[in-house]
Amino acid sequence: MPAPEQVAENYSFDGVIRKFKATSTSLGGLETQFNVFVPKEALDGQKVPVLYYLAGLTCTEDTAPWKGGFLRDAAAEGIALVFPDTSPRGAGIEGEEKDWDFGTAAGFYLNATKDPWSKHYNMYDFLTSELPSLLSSLSLPLDLSRSSIFGHSMGGHGALTLYLKSLLASSPPTTYLSASAFAPIANPIKCQWGEKAFKGYLSGGVEEGKEYDATELIGQVKGKEVKILVDVGTGDIFYKQKQLLPENFIAARDAAGFSSKDVEVNLHEHYDHSYYFISTFAPAHIRFHAQILKNAAGKL
Amino acid sequence: MPAPEQVAENYSFDGVIRKFKATSTSLGGLETQFNVFVPKEALDGQKVPVLYYLAGLTCTEDTAPWKGGFLRDAAAEGIALVFPDTSPRGAGIEGEEKDWDFGTAAGFYLNATKDPWSKHYNMYDFLTSELPSLLSSLSLPLDLSRSSIFGHSMGGHGALTLYLKSLLASSPPTTYLSASAFAPIANPIKCQWGEKAFKGYLSGGVEEGKEYDATELIGQVKGKEVKILVDVGTGDIFYKQKQLLPENFIAARDAAGFSSKDVEVNLHEHYDHSYYFISTFAPAHIRFHAQILKNAAGKL
Repeated sequence: MPAPEQVAENYSFDGVIRKFKATSTSLGGLETQFNVFVPKEALDGQKVPVLYYLAGLTCTEDTAPWKGGFLRDAAAEGIALVFPDTSPRGAGIEGEEKDWDFGTAAGFYLNATKDPWSKHYNMYDFLTSELPSLLSSLSLPLDLSRSSIFGHSMGGHGALTLYLKSLLASSPPTTYLSASAFAPIANPIKCQWGEKAFKGYLSGGVEEGKEYDATELIGQVKGKEVKILVDVGTGDIFYKQKQLLPENFIAARDAAGFSSKDVEVNLHEHYDHSYYFISTFAPAHIRFHAQILKNAAGKL
Repeated sequence: MPAPEQVAENYSFDGVIRKFKATSTSLGGLETQFNVFVPKEALDGQKVPVLYYLAGLTCTEDTAPWKGGFLRDAAAEGIALVFPDTSPRGAGIEGEEKDWDFGTAAGFYLNATKDPWSKHYNMYDFLTSELPSLLSSLSLPLDLSRSSIFGHSMGGHGALTLYLKSLLASSPPTTYLSASAFAPIANPIKCQWGEKAFKGYLSGGVEEGKEYDATELIGQVKGKEVKILVDVGTGDIFYKQKQLLPENFIAARDAAGFSSKDVEVNLHEHYDHSYYFISTFAPAHIRFHAQILKNAAGKL
C-alpha cells in the first residue's frame, strides 16, 4: 500500500489542513481523497486525538472543512479532524452518476455485498481499517487510539453505526470513544433513502441493512457505556419527510435503558438540514468529543 | 422600485439568514441577489448595526456566508451582515463569461464608464445607493446609520475604496464607520487584475481607475479620522505575484501620517488567499467593526 500523497495544504487557525490522495484497496483500487486538519500542537510534535467527520449525500471531503465551522474549535481544543469522501468515485458502474441519493457521493458508509457494487462500494472497510492505516503512515503525531466520529445526515447514520458496531465487535477494527450526529438518518431501514441504498448495495436488501441501522444497533449495545450526541432541526424538510426518524432512535434508546445524558438527542425548532444548522451546533459537538478524547489521555 | 422578494431562509446561530432577489436600476434592470444575516436581537425587534461584506473574484453572495465563518461572531455581537453579489449577471455582453477575472463575478465594485459595460456594470452605485434603499424597504430593524464594510481580495479593494470615497464625498451616498479587508487588491492601478478591469470598464482606463485605488485614496483622506484593518497572508500566491501590493498601501498610509493603530495592516506567515485564511481572522474583523458600530450607538 503506497503512502498517501499530499496534494494541497492551507494554513488555518494556527494549524494546517492537508489534502491527501491515496489508492484504496477497500475501494477496489480507486483513488480517494481525504482532508486532515492538523492543530498547532501536532505541528509542534505533540500527540493529538482524532475526530472523523462523515459528510452527507452529494458532499465531498471538502464540504465540511469549508462550510462546517469545525476548524476553529478543533484548533482551540487541540484535536485533529479527518474528512474522508462520501463514496468511491469513478468505478464506472452503470447508473453510478444517475441519482443524487445513490452511487457517487452516496456510499452510505457500508460494505456493498451486491454486484456490481461490491467491488468498489466498501466505505465501511475503508473507514474502519484502511483509513487509520493510511493516517498512521503519515508523518503526523496522530494518537489513533483516541478517536471519535461524527457526521451529517447520511454521514450521521455512518458515524452512529460505525461507533455502535465498534462497541459490538469482539475485535473491532477501529474503536471510537464517542459519536455524534447532525440530522442523522437514524433508522434507515424505515425510510426511502435507506431502503433505496440497502436494496441497491446489499444482496440481502433492507433485512441485511439492519446491521447498518442506528435504531436497530442501539438496542444491541444495551448495558455498555455509550456516549452519543445528536442534534436535529425540526424545520428540516427531510425530518418532515420522515427520512431521519430521530423519534424511532429515541424510543429504541429508552427501551434499551440509556439515559438522555448517555445518548443525548436534541430537537431544535426552525433549524433545517443545511450547513447553516451544522455550523451553529459545531462548537458543542467539538466540545463534546474533545472532553471525552482528552479525558481518555490519562487512561490509555 | 419593487421591494426585494425573499427566496430563501435558513436559521443559524439563533438568528436567520435570508436571501433576497431584486430588480436593480443601477445594474440596468438586471435581477440581483443578496443575503442578509439577521441576528436574534433584530428578530426580537431591536435595531442593529449593519456590516457589508464584498466577496472576491469568482464568488457569489453565498460564498462568504457559507465559508467565511462570520455568522457566529456577528450573532454574538448582535450585528447584521449583508452579502451582495460580486457583479451583475446575465447582461448578455460579448465576452462577459470568457474570463474569470473580468465580466461576470468580477465587477470590481465600480461604475463602468465604457460601452458596452456602462449600462449594467455599476456595482458602486448599487452598493452605495440602491442596496441601502432596498434594505430599508425590508421589514427588518436595520440601523443603516451605523454601517461598516469589509471584503476579500477584489472585495477588499471594494471595501477600502467605498469607505475612503465616502470619507471624501461632500454628500456621501452611504457613510461607513469603518472598513476592513482580507488580502485586498490594495493598489489596483499597479497590478494586472486592476489594469485589466480599469482598461475594460473605464473609458479613462487606468488613469480613471485611480479613483478606485485604495493606495491613491488613503493619501487623499489625510487628516481625517480613519479606521481600517487589513490582514494579508504572505503564503498567498497572489501576494507573491504582486496582485495585492499591501506594501504600497502601507507606504501611502505612512506618507499620509496615519498610525498603524488607525490603519492596521498585518502580514501573516504561511496563510494563503483562501477562505481557510479568511475564517481564521474572521472573529477579529467582526470584533473590530462591532466595537466601532456599538460605540456609535450612543453618538448618533
